[in-house]
Amino acid sequence: MGKIKTARVITIGDEIITGKIVDTNAFHISRFLLNRGYRVNSIVSIGDIPSAIRSAVRKALAESDIVIVTGGLGPTHDDITKKILCEVFKCKTCFSPSVYRYIESYFKKRGVAVPDVCRDYAEIPTEATAVKNPPGAAPALLFQKRLLALPGVPHEVSEILEKYGNRVIPRAGFTAERTIHTAGAGEAGLMRRMTSLDAAREIADIAFLPKRGRVDLRIIARGETAPAANGKRRKAEKFLKEGIEELVWGYDGDSIESVVGGLLAKAGKTVAVAESCTGGGIGSAITDISGSSNYFLGGIIAYSNRAKQAELGVSPYLLRKHGAVSREVASAMAEGARKKFNSDYGLSATGIAGPTGGTKEKPVGLIYIALAGPEGVSSKELKLTRSRPINRERTVFQALHLLHTVLKEKR
Amino acid sequence: MGKIKTARVITIGDEIITGKIVDTNAFHISRFLLNRGYRVNSIVSIGDIPSAIRSAVRKALAESDIVIVTGGLGPTHDDITKKILCEVFKCKTCFSPSVYRYIESYFKKRGVAVPDVCRDYAEIPTEATAVKNPPGAAPALLFQKRLLALPGVPHEVSEILEKYGNRVIPRAGFTAERTIHTAGAGEAGLMRRMTSLDAAREIADIAFLPKRGRVDLRIIARGETAPAANGKRRKAEKFLKEGIEELVWGYDGDSIESVVGGLLAKAGKTVAVAESCTGGGIGSAITDISGSSNYFLGGIIAYSNRAKQAELGVSPYLLRKHGAVSREVASAMAEGARKKFNSDYGLSATGIAGPTGGTKEKPVGLIYIALAGPEGVSSKELKLTRSRPINRERTVFQALHLLHTVLKEKR
Repeated sequence: MGKIKTARVITIGDEIITGKIVDTNAFHISRFLLNRGYRVNSIVSIGDIPSAIRSAVRKALAESDIVIVTGGLGPTHDDITKKILCEVFKCKTCFSPSVYRYIESYFKKRGVAVPDVCRDYAEIPTEATAVKNPPGAAPALLFQKRLLALPGVPHEVSEILEKYGNRVIPRAGFTAERTIHTAGAGEAGLMRRMTSLDAAREIADIAFLPKRGRVDLRIIARGETAPAANGKRRKAEKFLKEGIEELVWGYDGDSIESVVGGLLAKAGKTVAVAESCTGGGIGSAITDISGSSNYFLGGIIAYSNRAKQAELGVSPYLLRKHGAVSREVASAMAEGARKKFNSDYGLSATGIAGPTGGTKEKPVGLIYIALAGPEGVSSKELKLTRSRPINRERTVFQALHLLHTVLKEKR
Repeated sequence: MGKIKTARVITIGDEIITGKIVDTNAFHISRFLLNRGYRVNSIVSIGDIPSAIRSAVRKALAESDIVIVTGGLGPTHDDITKKILCEVFKCKTCFSPSVYRYIESYFKKRGVAVPDVCRDYAEIPTEATAVKNPPGAAPALLFQKRLLALPGVPHEVSEILEKYGNRVIPRAGFTAERTIHTAGAGEAGLMRRMTSLDAAREIADIAFLPKRGRVDLRIIARGETAPAANGKRRKAEKFLKEGIEELVWGYDGDSIESVVGGLLAKAGKTVAVAESCTGGGIGSAITDISGSSNYFLGGIIAYSNRAKQAELGVSPYLLRKHGAVSREVASAMAEGARKKFNSDYGLSATGIAGPTGGTKEKPVGLIYIALAGPEGVSSKELKLTRSRPINRERTVFQALHLLHTVLKEKR
């Protein structure tokens, strides 16, 4: 294989280096460059300081085949990128009537005149060509086919790259990628079970990405043609899965809700939810999936004991004897949802999400999930953390993973 | 004011530069450094390549007062940071019995022996001191009081910085920060309304951070003492808000659900939800807030027409005449939830989240939200995008913002 072409990503904005926002642009741009066959040698984030931008851009051009810059093309005072790029590329700007017409139509659709501060968008550097920005007013700029300057607004970045990226950034090689989603073992546990990890590493780059309660495995294979890269990817995947097959629940863009949705749709089964500590989070996850109306019938958010009794038919006796946070009440809630919505499965969660509300017997992080189905009820006790958002997120995952386990067994 | 001390952040990991993950560590570390009074001159992300790590670390030490590195301290093959830092600081490692005892206790709590690959965690570079990592096994390392090497796992990074960051990174100055959350105008619209933006800019750094359907304004003021920084921050805030007071709904860590929760708790009022296209998202947002059980009574996820009738009492006539996606049905759903849970307010959403399911009369992105309360029902038509996740997120925000508007008027 020839030399891999390199790319540099520069993200500009005080909001990044002062920790105001998470830099999702860097993420999307890196993905895009990987898919175009580049090796990103570095991502550099700097503030809205002319000297820092100038030196980062010069260094990037010296060290990389392609440079993508994001941020600093909007109307506010902190947007200075275009000026500096003109300095670096030793050029002036020139008014573009066609770009101006686009800007006019952009604001016309919104029922307003072009704000004074936005007229400058039509001033295009003479060493650059304008690249359309369908959801925004400021065009992207491609300098000498080597440097692409994008606006800083994340959904504009995504859409420009998706629609015009392939046209403006030449392909440099082929990569094939695979992410394997696992749950049930930590990073070290997976390594212990894997029997052919070293063989996989000889063929492709392998990364372990631990997440809360689960681990993703990522394969990146490179080749001079798409079939060559794909062939390596498939081989590496086979090796990587040896010994951990039963822990795998999905691939690539799969989420636990999309996998479960697929299994439900395929089996022609339906589900309803009964949620206490997750407050609607399980239903929200299930309905994230387009087409979920085919298998999701609805749910009850029973945040109070009263709602658990009135809406889900949980008996006052159970609530008194075991408390709302118990395996017994979780099971009754799941059965209640199944009955009420006349669904094949009922899925429930009840627990102490925290950070307050725990007792010695029932500490924060103690949560029960249950699944009622045609074969009866299965339930699970979770002992999680002291953090409310972590506990809620993990409970939603674990509940859907419980449904996944049952649906997979039945196949 | 004296010279502001600088800091560099280096995040290491193929998963970052290949666009596998969003680099939240860079975000948390930058925030931490800002709060300690540093100006972050750059964030550099690189892959697991020894030469790239070596040169980034050397450059960082030459150009910055403090360096924080994250990633590459774990057990897997791609973790090479410690070795390279030893090279740069010209030192060896030495086995630390006390660190090893901690590692043993870490794995003992999890019921397993120390994995072979994890023994190396106890090898501490002679130019570094180990810093405790409460949620993880690998300690952080502080080299010559100038470079802090952290593991790559996000929640470990947060916890180490929170518990020990102030002890290991000296304070370099004071900053005062304020974020103002607005909704109802875009970036250009806000600028048009603001009467004293320039005055605010003279005192502090001001950034506009547009989000979907709303804009955050951020102030950073610096001073040699905390009161000096705070004084500037307050002045800048006063100027910044002139002309846009009625668009402000919160500050700093506020979310619309926390602000609405605070208003409900203060007024002693309760709310229940009736959700179709959001599938539990509004309830999930409300119950993100600890203590929400004081004002959130529960909800119905009515994804089907049948559930809208059976659980919320929406009349078949309304559904036939106007369709499930209509102002009338949204209003009936809100009233239904209010009645069923006997709450002060009922909040609903129904619409076509997309990406499929639209018609010419009712396109994807057409969504109705409604609020039923003691004074009657108010409702709102939203015309959003073709993207399902964006539509759902914005609908949750808009529904809570509708409740916010009504609660604020009543104060």
